[in-house]
Amino acid sequence: LSEVGIVTGICGKFRKNSSTSLLDLACEPCVSIFKQYPDLKDEIDCVLFSTTSDIQYGSTILSEYLGIKSNISQRIDNLCNSGTNAIISGYSFVKAGLCETVLVVGADLKNTQGKRLNWDVTRGQFPFPVHWASLFAKSHMRKFGTTEEQMASVAVKNCNNAMKNPSAIHSKGITLDEVLQSKKIAGPIKLMDCSYVCDGASAVVIANKEKAKKFTDNPVWIRGIGSYVSSASFSGISDDLSSLKSAKIAARRAYDMAEVRPTDLDVVEVHDAFTIMEIISYEDLDLVAKGKGGEYVTNGNTMTNTRGGLLGSGHPLGATGIAQTVEIVEQLTGSAQGRQVQTPHRLGLVHNLAAAGSSAAIIILGGEH
Amino acid sequence: LSEVGIVTGICGKFRKNSSTSLLDLACEPCVSIFKQYPDLKDEIDCVLFSTTSDIQYGSTILSEYLGIKSNISQRIDNLCNSGTNAIISGYSFVKAGLCETVLVVGADLKNTQGKRLNWDVTRGQFPFPVHWASLFAKSHMRKFGTTEEQMASVAVKNCNNAMKNPSAIHSKGITLDEVLQSKKIAGPIKLMDCSYVCDGASAVVIANKEKAKKFTDNPVWIRGIGSYVSSASFSGISDDLSSLKSAKIAARRAYDMAEVRPTDLDVVEVHDAFTIMEIISYEDLDLVAKGKGGEYVTNGNTMTNTRGGLLGSGHPLGATGIAQTVEIVEQLTGSAQGRQVQTPHRLGLVHNLAAAGSSAAIIILGGEH
Repeated sequence: LSEVGIVTGICGKFRKNSSTSLLDLACEPCVSIFKQYPDLKDEIDCVLFSTTSDIQYGSTILSEYLGIKSNISQRIDNLCNSGTNAIISGYSFVKAGLCETVLVVGADLKNTQGKRLNWDVTRGQFPFPVHWASLFAKSHMRKFGTTEEQMASVAVKNCNNAMKNPSAIHSKGITLDEVLQSKKIAGPIKLMDCSYVCDGASAVVIANKEKAKKFTDNPVWIRGIGSYVSSASFSGISDDLSSLKSAKIAARRAYDMAEVRPTDLDVVEVHDAFTIMEIISYEDLDLVAKGKGGEYVTNGNTMTNTRGGLLGSGHPLGATGIAQTVEIVEQLTGSAQGRQVQTPHRLGLVHNLAAAGSSAAIIILGGEH
Repeated sequence: LSEVGIVTGICGKFRKNSSTSLLDLACEPCVSIFKQYPDLKDEIDCVLFSTTSDIQYGSTILSEYLGIKSNISQRIDNLCNSGTNAIISGYSFVKAGLCETVLVVGADLKNTQGKRLNWDVTRGQFPFPVHWASLFAKSHMRKFGTTEEQMASVAVKNCNNAMKNPSAIHSKGITLDEVLQSKKIAGPIKLMDCSYVCDGASAVVIANKEKAKKFTDNPVWIRGIGSYVSSASFSGISDDLSSLKSAKIAARRAYDMAEVRPTDLDVVEVHDAFTIMEIISYEDLDLVAKGKGGEYVTNGNTMTNTRGGLLGSGHPLGATGIAQTVEIVEQLTGSAQGRQVQTPHRLGLVHNLAAAGSSAAIIILGGEH
């Protein structure tokens, strides 16, 4: 089986209110890509549209907007990990030999129905995501002594990183005190512990080795993929509310497929829908030992969520997994500009959750150098 | 690359009004499959849900209903060819080595938003599918002398075939006169030239060679896949309104991949949303020469739409492409009961369109014998 690479990726500007249509929003990063690579558009033979919106035939309509004649066209949804799922589909179409050059686009407006998971009656009187984040935080604090300050430090780190990311919704840094003093939503989770669902779009181009090499000397290879669904409901996601079974299983599979260890990673994007989820993700990904996530964030961690994560960049559901992937691609190709922490990185990971971590998708990417 | 096969498939009963939820409907064919193959459920590592409904996280919720822990879970939409697209994804995940055993489920309720394509302003004052069918019919009649009787013969053949299909919505045959005397909708298209959008669900299980052989001595292999998007709007679908560019390109690709010719086919499912579309499909698939589709239907054609097609079986949008595939699987394994025209067939084709034929997906299946 031949290698599958990412030619390029662009993250559009995430906004609180874009005052535009979903399709126009989705076109933004695509148009930027085709400006940068004028010959690339004619090579696209598959368009995948990751969105939680209810736009039937959306990928085909988007293709028409962009002037692309594709072979395979699909709208793909799995809530907040729709983006990485669409990338996994693109990888598979190329690997299976059905396509050579795949445009994967993610876009959502902040009022998407995807914010709700009304069917899940196991949540009882606590239907909002912040309620489960509260349970996770309380469990982690009780078991491992994790503190509200450590959680707040995640928000500070990510919002400060976001200042260097022109696509991010947050453009100014925050202080620990501001997070700790922000409005309590569902204790111990405060307003600034929460990511903000917003308007946004992002896109990557996936290709087989020949096409990838045609367009760049510096492709990023998809080396590992792992995903797992533990449940669709809160009742089935975790045994102890301090870790996510879906992410742990997905990570192990991705590491096995890529034949790498957690210590080999240079840069990591984790799904910090809430600050506590970043701390738990360190542990689920085996970046640190179980229970040590809280310490890790205040201990000089510079390799996670360099773009600002969901907390700093905003969270347009269907675009998030692709935006995370774009960041890793930029870091691995030395094009992350002010956010570049070492040049160049060699190995990166994307950790993308959905619906209280009931499912997880993880992708490991490797740079050319 | 190893072979990818279909273990089994079941089509649920299509109904005018099922009085059930989309998810309960989707479970029906799955439960039937797991009754027949009790050990199969635990092997499922991917669930793909083809639907035009707006049920976010639908495949994951469906997995939960069914008690399946999957790795990859996606809701997939490309309007009326969502079903074959989901099968193409299942094939690719297996071929790429990410999954071994994939459950592909299609379901829709008749009131789905997928019936409308409101964005397509190129349709002007003629937004309903029957309007474009009328244009195609007029063009084909003018150019090739195709008659209303020939079109009506398609409906008669398919509704008579549907009498032998327990899943079909129509359970009694019709006469040529009944079709010709039925209410004119958009001349020359009459009520009985039109398929009926209804409630329905269908499912297939796709697997790698090892898993396929574990569960059946008689797997059906996916030998050819072709798909093409010519446009998302009526304005771009055809040069002459008597053939579909999407279907012609998709068919050529599928034939090339399978290394077979149209004359090699034993059984064919075509997307007869309207009678004229079946006639055009004969030509687009090169079963007959251009312009000869009208004659073909009255000339002893017994190999197409043995289950009754969309006209006889009903058309639950997201389920249709999968229901078509189930029919070919049954024909190729000699299990089509009263509909079995030769035992067993060796090579079959599924032709699945969306939105006025603006996109087409074609799958060629080969029996074991």
